[in-house]
Amino acid sequence: MDRPKIIIDVHGADNSPYALVDGAIRSLSQDGFDIVFIGQEQVINKELLKYTYDNNRISLVHAPDVVNTTDKPTEVIRFKKESSMIMGLNMLKTQDDCIAMISAGNTGTYLTGGVLIVGRLTGVLRPSLAAFVPTVGGNKLCICDAGANVDSKPEYINQYALLASCYMRAFRDIQNPKVGLLNNGIEDNKGTVVIKETYNLLKANKYINFVGNVEARYALEDIADIVVADGMMGNILLKSIEGTAITVFKMLKNEILSGGIGSKLGAALLKKTFGNIRYKMDYQQVGGAPLLGLNKIVLKAHGSSEATSIKQSVWDIYKMHNKKMIENIKESILNANK
Amino acid sequence: MDRPKIIIDVHGADNSPYALVDGAIRSLSQDGFDIVFIGQEQVINKELLKYTYDNNRISLVHAPDVVNTTDKPTEVIRFKKESSMIMGLNMLKTQDDCIAMISAGNTGTYLTGGVLIVGRLTGVLRPSLAAFVPTVGGNKLCICDAGANVDSKPEYINQYALLASCYMRAFRDIQNPKVGLLNNGIEDNKGTVVIKETYNLLKANKYINFVGNVEARYALEDIADIVVADGMMGNILLKSIEGTAITVFKMLKNEILSGGIGSKLGAALLKKTFGNIRYKMDYQQVGGAPLLGLNKIVLKAHGSSEATSIKQSVWDIYKMHNKKMIENIKESILNANK
Repeated sequence: MDRPKIIIDVHGADNSPYALVDGAIRSLSQDGFDIVFIGQEQVINKELLKYTYDNNRISLVHAPDVVNTTDKPTEVIRFKKESSMIMGLNMLKTQDDCIAMISAGNTGTYLTGGVLIVGRLTGVLRPSLAAFVPTVGGNKLCICDAGANVDSKPEYINQYALLASCYMRAFRDIQNPKVGLLNNGIEDNKGTVVIKETYNLLKANKYINFVGNVEARYALEDIADIVVADGMMGNILLKSIEGTAITVFKMLKNEILSGGIGSKLGAALLKKTFGNIRYKMDYQQVGGAPLLGLNKIVLKAHGSSEATSIKQSVWDIYKMHNKKMIENIKESILNANK
Repeated sequence: MDRPKIIIDVHGADNSPYALVDGAIRSLSQDGFDIVFIGQEQVINKELLKYTYDNNRISLVHAPDVVNTTDKPTEVIRFKKESSMIMGLNMLKTQDDCIAMISAGNTGTYLTGGVLIVGRLTGVLRPSLAAFVPTVGGNKLCICDAGANVDSKPEYINQYALLASCYMRAFRDIQNPKVGLLNNGIEDNKGTVVIKETYNLLKANKYINFVGNVEARYALEDIADIVVADGMMGNILLKSIEGTAITVFKMLKNEILSGGIGSKLGAALLKKTFGNIRYKMDYQQVGGAPLLGLNKIVLKAHGSSEATSIKQSVWDIYKMHNKKMIENIKESILNANK
């Protein structure tokens, strides 16, 4: 096999194209993979002029069209076949040396396109999005599904646990990751009809390490490595953690600005401390979220990703590739469905 | 009518009985209502010895039994008829001068008991819990339903909007409160089957001020005064906001403790600033959450409530009573169901 290639869709993000190009170029400080930029040739070439880089590791594929954030998935897939996102996914599907794609564009379209074009591994019911949030103990909690599917059936959520466990083994080197079920209480009779049924399936699932229900209040307290949920609930958990952290920092800033000289001096002395926490809570320091259960790695970067996050995403993908995550998921699903 | 009485269940909370007794005694700095303590006579009398208070405003009803946090609602209602919680709810139902009850005990039992014993107002489909969280702008966002019901039908959630609007009018003096629907995106075609149907009902509901979908990420950004959701989603939003705020403060503390003399000095200078934010984010400063849609005010205080929160809850109830919240809900439901 040729050197593995990672496709970068440069369009559709808040910071397109510069954060995507900048991040990918920075990722080249590690060796072992090459980058394929996909998008409008002129735009990419103009951006590339700003950098010095190893020509052998970068290539460019021209895609004339761009997917906008307001575009509807079904319409894009039918009518925007020449967009960077759709062309990228087709390239990922058909070219053996392409191991992964990164896009920070239209989430719904990218996830739908990923499933329809790149395709599911045999036995996968619903591919699901796995996102990380920082915990009190300095670990990272994996939320799965973080938003790919709503109205999930119990058997889907049960399988998310398996997919996320393979991901944690490959990517975080945790051999037997603890799986919790997001719920409104820890007792085993809590929750919706779907959650109660899911609880029973997870409890009986011998391929995962189920630790019971996890309440949103304690999600960041390192009770579990993975929290599984329907994509709607997972999305609310993920986004409210993100929103609240930002809110607390905004309140802190407002208080300091409206405080006296003492509070400003205090803030100056704590600059490093605040920086460390912001760094810990900052999703820019975390790579994007992979859509697990597909034939290849389809990674969704945050719409407002900066170069650091894109660089990290490339490195994350290379690690998943080296740890043979896709092969492990394939094997696990086959075993579980036996 | 006699002076309004507020029943306080002194048992079943983390800080029982002292926080309940202390808080209620402190609330007497306002006039206009009286307090009825319900619980084990000896326990309450022993606690009351610590205080000086106006004897005319305090009475005591002996209840021999106590509801524990692990008790099942249906079993308590059948077999613990002499518990402070069940006796209190029966007293609230039958005595005209009793306007409200506060309990910080077993949530599931209290909510079930509230519905079964105190009873719903005519036309109310599902009583729902309304809880507040602090926003960036210094306001309070009402989350409804915050956890009373799971598997809510669209017509239930549509009615939560009406109940919470009456609550905000009475309690926060907001005449035309903005109602948002908790969802995983702002577009009108987002969400589960239930959420999409709810969206259409809310949009057509002329008795509320619907402002569209609200994402968890922006819930604290003062887009809406009320966010409605199924109790499962509402609970996750509420609890993850609470948990994340606590997590950020824990991280801050850990960083400061592991930092040098400079960071400790900085922290000392910012003591007031930190205190202000903790105060803003602290649910102890907010009263309990009312179960809306019942014939009387049934208020659930946080299990770990301290005296401040109980005092605030009593005052909140007195305000709802003066603003005729129950009568307004009754009338609104009748109008909407016409």
